[in-house]
Amino acid sequence: MRARKKLNIGLVGYGFMGRTHSNAFRKVNNFFDVAFEPVLKCVCARDGAKADAFAKQWGYESSETDWRRLIARKDIDLIDIASPNDTHADIAIAAAKAGKMILCEKPLARNAYQAEKMVSAVKKAGVANMVWYNYRRVPAVTLARQLIGEGRLGRIFHYRAKFLQDWTISKDLPQGGAGLWRLDVKVAGSGVTGDLLAHCIDTAMWLNGPIDKVTAMTETFIKQRKHTLTGKVQKVGIDDASAFLARFSNGSLATFESTRYARGHKALYTFEINGEHASIFWDLHDLHRLQYFDHRDEGKVRGWRSLHITDGDHPYMKNWWVPGLQIGYEHTFIHQVADFLEGLDTGKMPRPDFRDGLATDYVTDAVLASAKSGRWVTVKKPK
Amino acid sequence: MRARKKLNIGLVGYGFMGRTHSNAFRKVNNFFDVAFEPVLKCVCARDGAKADAFAKQWGYESSETDWRRLIARKDIDLIDIASPNDTHADIAIAAAKAGKMILCEKPLARNAYQAEKMVSAVKKAGVANMVWYNYRRVPAVTLARQLIGEGRLGRIFHYRAKFLQDWTISKDLPQGGAGLWRLDVKVAGSGVTGDLLAHCIDTAMWLNGPIDKVTAMTETFIKQRKHTLTGKVQKVGIDDASAFLARFSNGSLATFESTRYARGHKALYTFEINGEHASIFWDLHDLHRLQYFDHRDEGKVRGWRSLHITDGDHPYMKNWWVPGLQIGYEHTFIHQVADFLEGLDTGKMPRPDFRDGLATDYVTDAVLASAKSGRWVTVKKPK
Amino acid sequence: MRARKKLNIGLVGYGFMGRTHSNAFRKVNNFFDVAFEPVLKCVCARDGAKADAFAKQWGYESSETDWRRLIARKDIDLIDIASPNDTHADIAIAAAKAGKMILCEKPLARNAYQAEKMVSAVKKAGVANMVWYNYRRVPAVTLARQLIGEGRLGRIFHYRAKFLQDWTISKDLPQGGAGLWRLDVKVAGSGVTGDLLAHCIDTAMWLNGPIDKVTAMTETFIKQRKHTLTGKVQKVGIDDASAFLARFSNGSLATFESTRYARGHKALYTFEINGEHASIFWDLHDLHRLQYFDHRDEGKVRGWRSLHITDGDHPYMKNWWVPGLQIGYEHTFIHQVADFLEGLDTGKMPRPDFRDGLATDYVTDAVLASAKSGRWVTVKKPK
Amino acid sequence: MRARKKLNIGLVGYGFMGRTHSNAFRKVNNFFDVAFEPVLKCVCARDGAKADAFAKQWGYESSETDWRRLIARKDIDLIDIASPNDTHADIAIAAAKAGKMILCEKPLARNAYQAEKMVSAVKKAGVANMVWYNYRRVPAVTLARQLIGEGRLGRIFHYRAKFLQDWTISKDLPQGGAGLWRLDVKVAGSGVTGDLLAHCIDTAMWLNGPIDKVTAMTETFIKQRKHTLTGKVQKVGIDDASAFLARFSNGSLATFESTRYARGHKALYTFEINGEHASIFWDLHDLHRLQYFDHRDEGKVRGWRSLHITDGDHPYMKNWWVPGLQIGYEHTFIHQVADFLEGLDTGKMPRPDFRDGLATDYVTDAVLASAKSGRWVTVKKPK
Repeated sequence: MRARKKLNIGLVGYGFMGRTHSNAFRKVNNFFDVAFEPVLKCVCARDGAKADAFAKQWGYESSETDWRRLIARKDIDLIDIASPNDTHADIAIAAAKAGKMILCEKPLARNAYQAEKMVSAVKKAGVANMVWYNYRRVPAVTLARQLIGEGRLGRIFHYRAKFLQDWTISKDLPQGGAGLWRLDVKVAGSGVTGDLLAHCIDTAMWLNGPIDKVTAMTETFIKQRKHTLTGKVQKVGIDDASAFLARFSNGSLATFESTRYARGHKALYTFEINGEHASIFWDLHDLHRLQYFDHRDEGKVRGWRSLHITDGDHPYMKNWWVPGLQIGYEHTFIHQVADFLEGLDTGKMPRPDFRDGLATDYVTDAVLASAKSGRWVTVKKPK
Repeated sequence: MRARKKLNIGLVGYGFMGRTHSNAFRKVNNFFDVAFEPVLKCVCARDGAKADAFAKQWGYESSETDWRRLIARKDIDLIDIASPNDTHADIAIAAAKAGKMILCEKPLARNAYQAEKMVSAVKKAGVANMVWYNYRRVPAVTLARQLIGEGRLGRIFHYRAKFLQDWTISKDLPQGGAGLWRLDVKVAGSGVTGDLLAHCIDTAMWLNGPIDKVTAMTETFIKQRKHTLTGKVQKVGIDDASAFLARFSNGSLATFESTRYARGHKALYTFEINGEHASIFWDLHDLHRLQYFDHRDEGKVRGWRSLHITDGDHPYMKNWWVPGLQIGYEHTFIHQVADFLEGLDTGKMPRPDFRDGLATDYVTDAVLASAKSGRWVTVKKPK
Repeated sequence: MRARKKLNIGLVGYGFMGRTHSNAFRKVNNFFDVAFEPVLKCVCARDGAKADAFAKQWGYESSETDWRRLIARKDIDLIDIASPNDTHADIAIAAAKAGKMILCEKPLARNAYQAEKMVSAVKKAGVANMVWYNYRRVPAVTLARQLIGEGRLGRIFHYRAKFLQDWTISKDLPQGGAGLWRLDVKVAGSGVTGDLLAHCIDTAMWLNGPIDKVTAMTETFIKQRKHTLTGKVQKVGIDDASAFLARFSNGSLATFESTRYARGHKALYTFEINGEHASIFWDLHDLHRLQYFDHRDEGKVRGWRSLHITDGDHPYMKNWWVPGLQIGYEHTFIHQVADFLEGLDTGKMPRPDFRDGLATDYVTDAVLASAKSGRWVTVKKPK
Repeated sequence: MRARKKLNIGLVGYGFMGRTHSNAFRKVNNFFDVAFEPVLKCVCARDGAKADAFAKQWGYESSETDWRRLIARKDIDLIDIASPNDTHADIAIAAAKAGKMILCEKPLARNAYQAEKMVSAVKKAGVANMVWYNYRRVPAVTLARQLIGEGRLGRIFHYRAKFLQDWTISKDLPQGGAGLWRLDVKVAGSGVTGDLLAHCIDTAMWLNGPIDKVTAMTETFIKQRKHTLTGKVQKVGIDDASAFLARFSNGSLATFESTRYARGHKALYTFEINGEHASIFWDLHDLHRLQYFDHRDEGKVRGWRSLHITDGDHPYMKNWWVPGLQIGYEHTFIHQVADFLEGLDTGKMPRPDFRDGLATDYVTDAVLASAKSGRWVTVKKPK
């Protein structure tokens, strides 16, 4: 086991993502032999009582109610941004200026305009940075990337992804406020496009390269909802559903879709990629499996293989239990922390970094623009 | 068992579809108590020897080599068109003029222009007519229609369908000629749009009503192929892949995709429909199952139900075996014949008729137009 | 296409199995190029009106009400026994004496004592004979046999099979009479042991060789039922459930189970075989698939393969449709007829013959004996 | 959040189970609001260096090399036994005498004789005790128990369970020593019977009540293996495979099977229970799902429901993430700790306790005895 240097964490936000990140920081050293030890130094939230309760539950040493104060602290090495989308840019830019490492929840920002500034800031400051597109580090997804990287699929013809949920179908669900800011366009920036499609796009570009152009359609099924903060019935500004056709730079075709109105699906993120020789399918509801079809298998015994991703030769899995015993959702965050800490040691920083996050924001911006114009839109690419 | 009148069949074409239809005519009376008995009177094909061999194998009483002669015969009641797409219009219009009933393979024609003339012809002649969109009569699909008809899904939000194959990936596959006319645009009219998406569209409009507008993308991955008939390498005119976004008249959103370049899928036609209360999923590779999710089920035992469509209270199934024992692809054609014969008796003709076939051709025409223009295209509707 | 000799069929019984056999005789020449053509000469049933109706529905030329008269007819080449179990022995022995070929429904007889006499009779008469253990000819099951025959599994460690149904759970279901003779021990000989386990055993010994010994347990959950024929509540003599452990001659271990009290399963016949190198799983509710695991696959992409048995290189499938399009239950009977007719031409008769049927009866007799004694019972083997 | 009292843990063993337990102690307070806080006080292992490394990796404050010393320590409240089977009895009995609470890995002991003494010891000492049959606390399994407890299944007819692995097929695998003590009968007590079937039996009796009698079969496929400790090829004393038939006290029938020679299965623990009205199926390879069939559903939409056990109204799940996001194997241990700590607070101790562990050992002893005698064996029950 390697000796470990302390890495002091300052977390902003105490919601769902605050929990997944804290759990990752706490567990990483039990399972991964890395050269750094995250120390839960401080959690920051506007509501001091909530910050304290969270600190107690997770073992943070202290709390703050102003992220500027957090960033100003000398004893903090890394700012982890787990607060709503509209706060990402300001916090990240300030943290970069202060020379802190930054981990930022996805999407990187409310739009590419903000994200560009964030990329500039970290570039200028030269600080380590990463975006929490955690699904890259589901072992099955990482394996998909390996298989593609080894050229097993040959020329790629098709990519298709969708992310289906059903939690906002009720007309009585309000918008805005704690737990519901994802329905408030001012905070979220967009609806499913930035929340769900962003995940699909990040994975897709990681596996299949850049997207050149898109044509899209969005819809808001419930036009008005009561706003939790104002108490008034207000127009809903987010997209409830978003779908687009795309062409990748490598010539392959794609369909993408996401919605919160697909009854029966809680978090059904799926993707499939079809190549000349082989195809891959994955689905978040059974995240510990990967479906793989290889046309080079002998004809009469050729079929889709259901890989149970729990073996020691599967990505990350030798660090966990024994073959046959599955891990779950939370482990993707632990893997990201492990890779980040390893990168700090080797100097070779893992992806997705802020620049990758910006690339995804360019696509979601193009999707929203196309949905408005009804035209194909060319996707901008990060410099 | 009811007394049966004879119904003399004249079949044009002896390929894959000639076989499925002949099998249906031969078996229907063993399993369905209908008032008509199809008599395999004559098969027609340009190659007389092949026509004779087919007649012998299937028990046709005679053969012809010219479909005009077949239509002219007094002893033929019904013309069944199972020849390539480019022949449908001429044969159907002539058959209608001769007062014959007509069953026509799908797509109804190479394009809507031809299809309109066919609809006029059967309307003018007042002859019974139907298109072989056989997947409506997979018992699971018919059940889906029943469930939707009963209002179980509530307001519909989403429809998604795809039809994936992988049989034309090889560059060495030629275009044109026997068995390969589907790759020759002059014969087929289009590629997967008319061949595969047409099925998806027919089912979709049957289940979810008319489509208002579409935006599409098509691709021809292999640009040149040797033509079997000319022996020369020629430009490929068909679309290898076709995908589109759509909006239905009922406000729901849709994605459609088809391709012959999806490794691992032989004939994977799938559709899913998401309503306010319930969702349905079906897939041709396990056609005897229907997946059904009902949100009104009690929360802790709510989940997708895998319905094994082999019970007596499932559509068509009381005519077959016993619960648990599945039927297959060919039975969809038998069901269509049974319904057609029943319609002849009751006077209430079943669907899809030529007008329905035209409606689908309007959509496929709009898809091809949109793929060219890059714009949303409004879909024409049959008068 | 080969020239065909006529083969005149005399069918005894008009129930469920009478239908599956008739369908097979009628369809075989449309799909298989064999040298014989089955002619539906005569159907025999005690009830003349029902025999006539069946004859009309299926196209039998004539009917009889006494199977002795049927056997006596010169124009009958083959006696097909599809009547209840208690009639098999008398009919088969008489048919053999009359020099008729015989196809007999399974189980071969009510017990091995009867079955031995039937084997002697066909042996003495030298007539072609076969038992309708139709599941051997599900293409997926035939493929399993091929894979095992090629040695792909290596040394076999385990075999497990079950056949689960749920149609007799209601206490109100009567025993005996039309459609319910399977609950009447006098007619059926046993309950699920002879009805369902017999199928499992036939397949198992075909795939994995002879069974040496068994220890068993049976149960009758509903002890008394009204008898349809007598109108009285009577003791139920059949086994509702039957399970046994077994050792095969090749050293492998097995578990077998069948019941009609497994809620949710209509006809769930499943088997799995585990070898040193590979394993196979099959299930009747998705009979067109075979699950195959090969440990010699590369580790990280090793998994169970779901084979969709619809390709031309899968057993029997080149005779049907195109890849991706599934066949169903009834086709197993057609395959058996095709193989039988081919055997008549080549002189190499296919299995399972009466001797194989006797081997299975020896196992079911041993199972019933062990369930009574509570001891391991050695299984007798046919000479 | 409740105030928490410290509970000092002394762990014996640092292997696979030492890791699962330590992880549970470390995480429980982050996710469950209980009145105790486990403190990782000391880990004990014969090899001091290994103990120290484990302590460092997991945050134990100290280490010991002699479990007697650990038990003697005043600052230890609870002894957690995660060492091989042959050590359980001595440690547990000594710990009980010292008045420590005890958590003990399963099986409780090498045989029921030892287990009886352990039960007596904890009873006499009046100390809290529990056995790590962790699979009871897979949320899907806990839900199964709830559904059965609510009477949804009605009269139970059948129970079937199996636990299939494939990791000892190679002849070159040695027996004995670190990680391989499960193959050494002196340490393990038995092979798959105590290792795998014990899990199946514990769950089965929890869900379906006591087992009355069994008839069994065991096999050792590889008769000799090199012993890691002696370096010599020695006879293998464990059972590689074990299967048995059983009758429960409630009149239901059962089949159980386990093996380490089932190619393709890493840890495939499955069970199914069939009742008059409903059935349940679960499988460890997709532990976050439960299959549920309810015959009272309307006929045409009746089918097996695949429950994705990630909702707030599923057992334990409100403590984790959001619907759709699965947890894994390790969480079962956390649930057990949470329940144990809750029990300490309420005084109502959760199961399975040592007495339950003894009940399972009585069954496994009966299985081994029956496999030797070839007879049905009546199962002893704890007083």
